[in-house]
Amino acid sequence: MRIEMLSTGDEVLYGQIVDTNSAWLSDFLFQQGFPITSRVTAGDNLNQLVDMLRERSKQNDVLIVNGGLGPTSDDLSALAAAMANNEELVEHAEWIAEMERYFAQRGRPMSPTNRKQAMLPKSATIINNPVGTACGFLVKLNGCSLFFTPGVPSEFKVMVKDEILPRLKQMFPNIVTPVCYRLTTLGRSESEIAAELESQLKLPENVDLGYRSAMPIIELKLTGPGTKQAEMEKVWQQLKGYVRDNTIYEGTVGLPKLVTELLTEKGLSLTVSEQYTAGLMAYQLYDAEAPLTGSEVTRNQQTSLVEYAKALRQKNHTDIALVLGDYKQEQKTFEVVLDTQQKTYHYQLKYISRIYSRTMLQDIFSTVALDMLRRHLSGLSLMTPNIWMEAIEL
Amino acid sequence: MRIEMLSTGDEVLYGQIVDTNSAWLSDFLFQQGFPITSRVTAGDNLNQLVDMLRERSKQNDVLIVNGGLGPTSDDLSALAAAMANNEELVEHAEWIAEMERYFAQRGRPMSPTNRKQAMLPKSATIINNPVGTACGFLVKLNGCSLFFTPGVPSEFKVMVKDEILPRLKQMFPNIVTPVCYRLTTLGRSESEIAAELESQLKLPENVDLGYRSAMPIIELKLTGPGTKQAEMEKVWQQLKGYVRDNTIYEGTVGLPKLVTELLTEKGLSLTVSEQYTAGLMAYQLYDAEAPLTGSEVTRNQQTSLVEYAKALRQKNHTDIALVLGDYKQEQKTFEVVLDTQQKTYHYQLKYISRIYSRTMLQDIFSTVALDMLRRHLSGLSLMTPNIWMEAIEL
Repeated sequence: MRIEMLSTGDEVLYGQIVDTNSAWLSDFLFQQGFPITSRVTAGDNLNQLVDMLRERSKQNDVLIVNGGLGPTSDDLSALAAAMANNEELVEHAEWIAEMERYFAQRGRPMSPTNRKQAMLPKSATIINNPVGTACGFLVKLNGCSLFFTPGVPSEFKVMVKDEILPRLKQMFPNIVTPVCYRLTTLGRSESEIAAELESQLKLPENVDLGYRSAMPIIELKLTGPGTKQAEMEKVWQQLKGYVRDNTIYEGTVGLPKLVTELLTEKGLSLTVSEQYTAGLMAYQLYDAEAPLTGSEVTRNQQTSLVEYAKALRQKNHTDIALVLGDYKQEQKTFEVVLDTQQKTYHYQLKYISRIYSRTMLQDIFSTVALDMLRRHLSGLSLMTPNIWMEAIEL
Repeated sequence: MRIEMLSTGDEVLYGQIVDTNSAWLSDFLFQQGFPITSRVTAGDNLNQLVDMLRERSKQNDVLIVNGGLGPTSDDLSALAAAMANNEELVEHAEWIAEMERYFAQRGRPMSPTNRKQAMLPKSATIINNPVGTACGFLVKLNGCSLFFTPGVPSEFKVMVKDEILPRLKQMFPNIVTPVCYRLTTLGRSESEIAAELESQLKLPENVDLGYRSAMPIIELKLTGPGTKQAEMEKVWQQLKGYVRDNTIYEGTVGLPKLVTELLTEKGLSLTVSEQYTAGLMAYQLYDAEAPLTGSEVTRNQQTSLVEYAKALRQKNHTDIALVLGDYKQEQKTFEVVLDTQQKTYHYQLKYISRIYSRTMLQDIFSTVALDMLRRHLSGLSLMTPNIWMEAIEL
């Protein structure tokens, strides 16, 4: 079974947008037992698209084509599909009716350019799009099933989940779902972790250990066929032992969500003040629906950070205040205060890693501070030795 | 001239990370006159990589391979290059010396796994990496130049700019730099704009009009060879006329930066309070280095939004306060107050577009509010008819 994704569009090829659809599709299909074997990107060039469809259909069992179904003249996918298959484009009445229903429901007129979206190859089977005007369609070419999907991420995802996945399961009923164990670490380098794990762990055949570094965290991932689960479980327990002190969570919960769970469990409320990180930490907490009563970004706090944190916690009537100071570029220091009902923690953190852009530093500082909160809520000491910061408790 | 990018790594192929390097490379090279003709992604599978290198090198003049140069066992690019070229991997003493210098400078020991990073195909020419331990290298295969580059974005970018671009310019000295005009609109749909422009504009040959929709803004892009600049200029002026009322800026400055420029020009300071948008607008303004004295995210404001805005502006001693309320899901309304020394503007905005995720709504609301500030600073009425919101001035 070979499944390839073909992303189309000058804006993807020439990098004006980041192709998040392909990352999402690959992850989703992988988890369903349909790992994508390769990915290809082409621009809005009709001849190149036709060639690609012909060539790639010979190499694959399934080709998922994304983008180019919009109403504008640089949306060429339907035409390319028809040309690759030596057939004509015809208006599919079924989809015209669906679009008319769509626009009527929303009380908006159907633009004449939308009509183009029902012009599909004659042999095409329509794939429903419940949330937009670009229908998907399926065409067979050289024994390969070509699924054409819209570029708008929300539309694309619904179509893949509700329409394409069930068809793939029908086409390949004997898929063995892969097993994937994941955990996320903070505070060690990828090469250091890898050196330790690769000298200590013996991986079963067809089981892979992968690393994903997303500044400042590193995710470890053990992947293999479902038939090897028992052996993998054993290796996974060993692995967890080696990275115990640096593990922030198992699975894919994410640090902001984990902190939210811990706060909620304990019935604690939080308020946050930031300087250098400019609201990034609070935004992540809001996104995770943390019990955050409010947050602020200040510049040039007048009083000491400790006094500030205490006053803030009182003003907002919360159980915890977490205050992140400014980054002092010259000294490379950064202060954090965690004020709780029982105790006030005050740390000066000295940044000891390589120089990165402001955005990266903001990511690192907000992750480290959030992890201090996690450690506090889990009954651990707030900091352990790590490659990012030297901590001095003040 | 055919230039292809080959992205490697299971974490890219299986979607655990979004491949931002490829978007960046494509955009960068496009602007330099070296448009990438296609892109391919492969996982960490040695045989597949070797096959890909052989196959793609036959199709292209230049292949830029990204990723797989790290110190861990799933970093296979150097080995695949050697195998594809039927040669052996040898330790390049030149790079060992460079890494020793690198670690000595940082006072850290060189891990034994780092040694692997100097194991390169025998025929490889080293390409310097001034900011990391993964060197790039160049290998020739089937008449194609294969550049191998590290996956870490900061390292990748430096290497492309400082090392690979100069080599491309040497290889292809007669490149015509393309011309690209851009502007960004807010408030109309892509299909509506396209229908108008495509019926009105006559594009010169080889000149393309592209659309990039990044909720809620739409970028228009006129691209063509430098030799057509005069004709393109004429079309561009016409195009600008058609979308005048919805244009928020020309070029690529971005809305937060533009607002920052307008504030700075006029010597005005700003404070911001947000609810539903959770600090997103402020974060973008800080990132653009706007004269923002502080910002906050509150929940459940007690007083009226107008009183709140006035008090906030006074408290922070700023010229302007911009306050964004909560989103009332049932009524689909959202209040915005812009308090200035001269006047207090108070709008109720009713969201009239399709339902999107919270993240998308946050993007839409913060962009619309920021654009209201832009319009105020530019002496325009705060709102014009648009597809997102119906505005009622209160």
